Amino acid sequence: MRKLFVIGIGAGDPEQVTLQAVRAIRQVDVFFMIGKGDTKQELIGVREQILRAHADQPYRVVAIEDPPRDRAIAATGADAAYRDAVEAWHARRAELLADEFGRTDGVGAVLVWGDPSLYDSTLRLIERVPAHFEVEVIPGITSAQALAARHRIVLHEIGEPVHITTGRRLREDGVTQGVSTLVMLDGDCSFTQVPADGLHIWWAAYLGMPDEELIEGPLGEAGPRIVARRQELRAAKGWIMDIYLLRADG
Amino acid sequence: MRKLFVIGIGAGDPEQVTLQAVRAIRQVDVFFMIGKGDTKQELIGVREQILRAHADQPYRVVAIEDPPRDRAIAATGADAAYRDAVEAWHARRAELLADEFGRTDGVGAVLVWGDPSLYDSTLRLIERVPAHFEVEVIPGITSAQALAARHRIVLHEIGEPVHITTGRRLREDGVTQGVSTLVMLDGDCSFTQVPADGLHIWWAAYLGMPDEELIEGPLGEAGPRIVARRQELRAAKGWIMDIYLLRADG
Repeated sequence: MRKLFVIGIGAGDPEQVTLQAVRAIRQVDVFFMIGKGDTKQELIGVREQILRAHADQPYRVVAIEDPPRDRAIAATGADAAYRDAVEAWHARRAELLADEFGRTDGVGAVLVWGDPSLYDSTLRLIERVPAHFEVEVIPGITSAQALAARHRIVLHEIGEPVHITTGRRLREDGVTQGVSTLVMLDGDCSFTQVPADGLHIWWAAYLGMPDEELIEGPLGEAGPRIVARRQELRAAKGWIMDIYLLRADG
Repeated sequence: MRKLFVIGIGAGDPEQVTLQAVRAIRQVDVFFMIGKGDTKQELIGVREQILRAHADQPYRVVAIEDPPRDRAIAATGADAAYRDAVEAWHARRAELLADEFGRTDGVGAVLVWGDPSLYDSTLRLIERVPAHFEVEVIPGITSAQALAARHRIVLHEIGEPVHITTGRRLREDGVTQGVSTLVMLDGDCSFTQVPADGLHIWWAAYLGMPDEELIEGPLGEAGPRIVARRQELRAAKGWIMDIYLLRADG
């Protein structure tokens, strides 16, 4: 039986890979690189750095280009249409992966930013690949943990829950009393659309990378600073990856 | 300025430490081992294995015994009393840590199971230590990620939230429609106290250890199997660490 690893490689710091990930990387013949927009050359650089540092065997890299995704639908906020668009996009990527994996002997791997269990489509995509192979998932450090580590905070109050959600769901659902809310995939500063009163924000961009930035404070005061800084950073670099935690002021 | 590392070392598999954690471990003069019950000799063994494998410098290990904790209060489910009990317990442990760190030169470290940001008290404890030192947090793989990796699942449906909570809060809050619920710190099989209809459970015990066990299925069918298996395992080993995810059947 052939094998495919799905390997979490951390939030952006090449030192955030685990020994388990390094051991897996060393068994791989073909790395499938699933494109997520070519503008993030810096992220591609981190990935290449991880491979160069750890893969001591001969290996090939096969790029799987992103088929076009209907981002207009994703932006409408309609749940069913959004899910359909994402599913159609996964189906097209799965076909590409199946073609490439079918042409390949030996052990394959997909490297995933953060952890494969959180807002990543690789596992859903592999489910659709009509081939017989064993899948082994290697967990990685998520940006949620990197955010907490850099701010030196626990994600929740004692014994309370933490709710991990997206920008669009934050806009729909708001913030629940007594729950810490961690927001990922928010291109729209959705924290500006919840009542700031009594909330605190811990924000970070480019976690683990040389340009890492942290801002924290009461949402009413820190929120506008984050909006402004985020615009500057995005304009300067061409892309941004950020994440934040919202919680009632303790 | 003196330095204290708080290092996440993963969910139980010694290979789950990151390169960043290994690098930090190699800078440490004194490891503070904060007791969590001596019955878990196997976990202590994993921690010692990590130190032996990676610390190539001379180091000391200082055990900080758990002061007695009022578990009777924790079990009542009264939020304020529970928080007070936990806070008093943290305060006593902080005194012990302050004493030991005060007697120590050089770089200190506390090793934390999983990640310091999730249901771990080390960071709250350090906040209370009245000393001047730099704290650096190294994120680790959580049991939530290990659970997802072993079941080869994403923690949530496409674009939906995941709610991380405790057994006691699950009993109080129940399961929210359209949200995946990940439950930690549940000694009481609280999944038996939510309506099983339409829910699926992914459960694991001793993640990353030789005795790892996985069960998944519709809650109504898999729930009783988990309750029975959990009792057997706990009786045989003397302790259990488990975690599970609940979600509406897709």
